[in-house]
Amino acid sequence: MSIRIGIYGWGNLGKGVELAASQNPDLTVAGVFTRRDPKTLKTNTGAPVYSVAEALKMQDQIDVMILCGGSATDLPEQTPALAQYFNVVDSFDTHAKIPEHVKNVQAAAEKAGKTALVSGGWDPGMFSLARLYSSAILPEGKDYTFWGKGVSQGHSDAIRRIAGVADARQYTIPVESALTAVRTGENPVLTTRDKHERECFVVAEEGADLARIENEIKTMPNYFADYNTTVHFISKEELVKNHSGLPHGGVVIRSGVTGVNKENKHVIEYSLKLDSNAEFTSSVLVACARAVYRLNQEGVVGCKTLFDIPPAYLSVKSREELLATML
Amino acid sequence: MSIRIGIYGWGNLGKGVELAASQNPDLTVAGVFTRRDPKTLKTNTGAPVYSVAEALKMQDQIDVMILCGGSATDLPEQTPALAQYFNVVDSFDTHAKIPEHVKNVQAAAEKAGKTALVSGGWDPGMFSLARLYSSAILPEGKDYTFWGKGVSQGHSDAIRRIAGVADARQYTIPVESALTAVRTGENPVLTTRDKHERECFVVAEEGADLARIENEIKTMPNYFADYNTTVHFISKEELVKNHSGLPHGGVVIRSGVTGVNKENKHVIEYSLKLDSNAEFTSSVLVACARAVYRLNQEGVVGCKTLFDIPPAYLSVKSREELLATML
Repeated sequence: MSIRIGIYGWGNLGKGVELAASQNPDLTVAGVFTRRDPKTLKTNTGAPVYSVAEALKMQDQIDVMILCGGSATDLPEQTPALAQYFNVVDSFDTHAKIPEHVKNVQAAAEKAGKTALVSGGWDPGMFSLARLYSSAILPEGKDYTFWGKGVSQGHSDAIRRIAGVADARQYTIPVESALTAVRTGENPVLTTRDKHERECFVVAEEGADLARIENEIKTMPNYFADYNTTVHFISKEELVKNHSGLPHGGVVIRSGVTGVNKENKHVIEYSLKLDSNAEFTSSVLVACARAVYRLNQEGVVGCKTLFDIPPAYLSVKSREELLATML
Repeated sequence: MSIRIGIYGWGNLGKGVELAASQNPDLTVAGVFTRRDPKTLKTNTGAPVYSVAEALKMQDQIDVMILCGGSATDLPEQTPALAQYFNVVDSFDTHAKIPEHVKNVQAAAEKAGKTALVSGGWDPGMFSLARLYSSAILPEGKDYTFWGKGVSQGHSDAIRRIAGVADARQYTIPVESALTAVRTGENPVLTTRDKHERECFVVAEEGADLARIENEIKTMPNYFADYNTTVHFISKEELVKNHSGLPHGGVVIRSGVTGVNKENKHVIEYSLKLDSNAEFTSSVLVACARAVYRLNQEGVVGCKTLFDIPPAYLSVKSREELLATML
């Protein structure tokens, strides 16, 4: 019997969840729920589309609802609200607000006897697991997280708001020399500027003052001023041709020491190179949905994160298969 | 209150466990148990030494016994035997026999109400986790495990058994071009020879026939015949100076695809660079001991592996700290 998935929200993430579910033989998408007119949406694998207003009527047909909205305004409301009626999974990624979000979802899920997993994805998510495992193994050490090379949508948007900019794409890139220093176990102290650089591809409106745009980008507080930033002006055609994808990725490195005189260095590295940020995140969420379903079947309720999930619960394989083929 | 660790066996692994425990504020080594005369052993952090014959009398003083013997003959006997009296952790690493070992330990631990974790370490262990997580996220993909650069003690021993060899050290090295092909997501089909090469540093006895030794190494079935092997004859002094450590490590890579037409590639990589194979393994075992203690306190008994352990159980940090600082 399939685990029946609901998809709440139809952006890049929701589309990715439908595709990811189709790669897993034990999962079926029972419905996509949208705030738009359901008739206007076409799914990729034929999953039926409903209005969000119909979701609560479908509690018996959905085993796990995957929330695919944004972290700024959607998920802080939606996840606790829907956890009253469904087992839920979300990708809430405002790191500073995770403890509060967990608390809110916990209250709703526990009361309803539902199971929730929040902050699934890769950061938070797989990168968080890399940090936890590595620091548990090497307590005397130091963690480093680098992001990229990848497109930052927030930074791309910030450039687009500058007068005279028609379109833009911004890549976050780890500084190679910093990565090298960390990988050798030197435990360097790194500033913001040392760790990442920013590369911007900008389509200017006709007649715009390029020098002014470049200066406005490079001096923009928080977004660019603390980084070495490169600006390239390109044509709209070139942007479409070479910068349409949303790749991302990054590296979590921990280096630590052991031994009588702490003479032995160890470096643990977890890295991701992703052609599609959203589709990879969706793939993690789908595995989380499987775990949530299994936990709920066992009577484990409340708000979980990947830190609480026995890894085997994420896999379609049986325990016997895992022991025989993966351990 | 500290979790009280027992160390059963005093080789490289046992010594590493004592040191690793001293890096964790919530752990104490209550005793080292040896088959040798306890008076002849000196521990590094002052842990008391007992004869293995005294272990069973100390059940009330040991929360978790970490078994530090070998997988060939010690652990298949010792782990089920001691799981009748203690919570236990081992690093059983004969991959093909893990299911049988789990079954034996499960029977003993369950009957006694004890908790066991077997096959902790890095492979099996952290590499197994990397394989499980990555395949759960990217079901359409392919796994690759590379070992090294590192010293293989089994291969070093095999060289030492050749007539005319005084001492030897063998390094297993991943083939760089194979790593590169895997990292680009090409999913290449790789033979044994394609994946690893072997580099041998040999001290010959005076007057030995070097050409014969080199030929015997390179044609040795299973150990070397299927690999590109390089042999260097060096002096005893050089071996001691440059090849005394037991470094190891390796890489687990999974590449997979997502998307409407499987057009997006993703590469997940987990890698280790370890100055001391034994000390890193010990550091994993010590974190496992913490998890085993906590599970037993909660009444979860039987034989577990890292696949069954919620990651948070391995960390000294509280759930609140983990959510606030690592997720």
